[in-house]
Amino acid sequence: MASLAVHSKKHKVCVVGSGNWGTTIAKVIAENVKENKDIFDAEVQMWVFEEEVQIPKDSKHFDPGSELCKKPQKLTQLVNGLHENVKYLPGIQLPENIIANPDVVDAVKHATILIFNLPHQFIGRICDNIKGKHLPYARGISCIKGVEVSDQGCDLFSDSIGQKLGIYVGALSGANIASEIALEKWCETTVAYDPPHMDSRQPTPEGTPAGSPHGSSATLQDLNSVATTPKGKKQNLMALPAEYPPLNHANIKKLFHRPYFHVRMVDDVAGVSLGGALKNVVALAAGWVDGLGWGDNAKAAIMRVGILETIQFGEAFYSKTFKRETITEESCGVADMITSCSGGRNFRCAKMSIKEGKSINEIEERELNGQKLQGTSTAYEVHSFLKAQGMEKKFPLFTAVFDVLEGNKKPEDIPELIEPHNE
Amino acid sequence: MASLAVHSKKHKVCVVGSGNWGTTIAKVIAENVKENKDIFDAEVQMWVFEEEVQIPKDSKHFDPGSELCKKPQKLTQLVNGLHENVKYLPGIQLPENIIANPDVVDAVKHATILIFNLPHQFIGRICDNIKGKHLPYARGISCIKGVEVSDQGCDLFSDSIGQKLGIYVGALSGANIASEIALEKWCETTVAYDPPHMDSRQPTPEGTPAGSPHGSSATLQDLNSVATTPKGKKQNLMALPAEYPPLNHANIKKLFHRPYFHVRMVDDVAGVSLGGALKNVVALAAGWVDGLGWGDNAKAAIMRVGILETIQFGEAFYSKTFKRETITEESCGVADMITSCSGGRNFRCAKMSIKEGKSINEIEERELNGQKLQGTSTAYEVHSFLKAQGMEKKFPLFTAVFDVLEGNKKPEDIPELIEPHNE
Repeated sequence: MASLAVHSKKHKVCVVGSGNWGTTIAKVIAENVKENKDIFDAEVQMWVFEEEVQIPKDSKHFDPGSELCKKPQKLTQLVNGLHENVKYLPGIQLPENIIANPDVVDAVKHATILIFNLPHQFIGRICDNIKGKHLPYARGISCIKGVEVSDQGCDLFSDSIGQKLGIYVGALSGANIASEIALEKWCETTVAYDPPHMDSRQPTPEGTPAGSPHGSSATLQDLNSVATTPKGKKQNLMALPAEYPPLNHANIKKLFHRPYFHVRMVDDVAGVSLGGALKNVVALAAGWVDGLGWGDNAKAAIMRVGILETIQFGEAFYSKTFKRETITEESCGVADMITSCSGGRNFRCAKMSIKEGKSINEIEERELNGQKLQGTSTAYEVHSFLKAQGMEKKFPLFTAVFDVLEGNKKPEDIPELIEPHNE
Repeated sequence: MASLAVHSKKHKVCVVGSGNWGTTIAKVIAENVKENKDIFDAEVQMWVFEEEVQIPKDSKHFDPGSELCKKPQKLTQLVNGLHENVKYLPGIQLPENIIANPDVVDAVKHATILIFNLPHQFIGRICDNIKGKHLPYARGISCIKGVEVSDQGCDLFSDSIGQKLGIYVGALSGANIASEIALEKWCETTVAYDPPHMDSRQPTPEGTPAGSPHGSSATLQDLNSVATTPKGKKQNLMALPAEYPPLNHANIKKLFHRPYFHVRMVDDVAGVSLGGALKNVVALAAGWVDGLGWGDNAKAAIMRVGILETIQFGEAFYSKTFKRETITEESCGVADMITSCSGGRNFRCAKMSIKEGKSINEIEERELNGQKLQGTSTAYEVHSFLKAQGMEKKFPLFTAVFDVLEGNKKPEDIPELIEPHNE
């Protein structure tokens, strides 16, 4: 039986990205591959954008007298020599089986599993670099939060990476703060993974029976197949050869689940991605309401309405694959909403803007060191998209956030704006 | 058409109870009946447990020089004279159409709508007092949070009141703090109301066609019918006479909905009641985890698991009527969970107990002035009930809370205890 076979090949993982969150995920994965040697190669490649780095004070290896600390060093050499990402995750001991690699093409070339964990503005360039250089049957997981929204449409990062590379890409999102996970403080996350059903023992979607004389198809664990993205686009996927252990929910979970990082697997990539994006818009409203002194109940009401509008968004624009339970019952939904509306930066800046009577842009400038709030940009993008669809009124909370940001409405108006008048 | 008929009678409301929450609900209702004179009588009876009260300093009418403040006065006379409940809701101006009545039998006698809002330990005695003295076709709404759990079973307060009086009783619960609603700070609530379908234009459940020569049945808006409680018990209900406007969701909503108190109507009485009870157990775990310094994500994970176990409880024991959306999408579910795990007393005491290394009983004694935490008693009751059903292991979070309270486990063990090992 295929399920009992010892597979001759193992999965090799490459983490594309090595910031705070990328390095943390690499740590999680490196710990897990060591414990699942039957499935995964023991070495985890991590692509590191090469830079010269001076060891900072919060590094475990900071010692003003040492040679190492006297002048800048290459970051990859520091990671591989000290097993610490001194720049982006200082103070955290990394497993020795993380191999930092400055060459992204070299890092991905043998990987059957690509973990995308880099700032979204670099996605395009990195995909251009590795396109055609990775294994054609590789599978991906995007840990990049958010969605790309414009007048024209709303795209998931997992989809755009998948389309660019011609591979299937799932998504990971949850109520997660990288630095806390790095310290092994307990939290949960959600991984969405649902490549087309391509088991070679089943007929393919085209009806070809399993094991039929189709060249290499009999040796493929899952036949080449046509996938449909959450937006309904068709995509040709190459099957994973049968020499590899299957990449099903159980095995993907083994890659991410730790005693301090509990994973729940779902199929719904759109839900996981939307949860991580739209909560930032809701967090602004929660911050305003809290800033007005309206108390925890008002804040909880905003979150509840935010959950409903997120569901409505998913049902309107990703009806093929979206499931409301992803938002109401998973870490990427309700839990991330709660966390973001409790102490996230969008929430905090919105609250300060009310308490100090300043615009949120002023607060953003003062508090975020040049960084931008994701909630405000997402609110504008979502509004522009909804307007183009003629659906602003169906999303009264999202629209209210836009109107308050624009100065058309006051935060005090929110209850009236989101009250259903036609019931 | 019946739906266009001007009904010759109006609904009369009695609020049974006049504490902080009872008086607040009376204020809400009194405001609403004035705005819906076609449906409701303009006078709202409020049963007040009579006591002699000295006007306190936080009353609007406190004036040390005045005659009124010199000696204790009857509370009903103060409410009716000053339009303020100086003892239980001082400082809040009440509408003049609230009539405080010390005689509960007199208060309920003309009411078609009975609002139960009193401490649960008084339910039995009050029901004994009014049984047979109220209109037989009256309908009730219970605003009493919690459920009665024992080894033998789990009973909703709405059910036990309904059974005792032989009337249908719905439930109101949400992320609500009485004093904030009294100040007209915005929040939401959920009202569950689903009497058996008894429209006289439809066949009855027994198949009697509408308007058939059945004595008074042709003049009844809904025929007498057999109701099934959420626990599956049969109950004979008397129909509401056709002279009254129908008591459907739209009209019940008119009774409670205010610009500062948004109401969502549902059918699911069990879900509304369970949400308000079980969140207190979850709030203890959230407090412990927060006390350990594990951060907002860990707390959100606890809430998420708590939501799932609440759903599971409803599906296991109220499968006939329970709907998971009541927990995941309504104020009585997710929003009340969030509020209780943010600043509620169960959460706060649990957190303190960790931070100070003291037992929760010590904290309770010090902080609550002799009052008891609802979370601990509910945790014990729920555990005892689940154990009697042999279902402890299916509710690992509820069971973990019990085990920590008992000293069998430590709060640090919770992630391991709730981790699903058999996936």
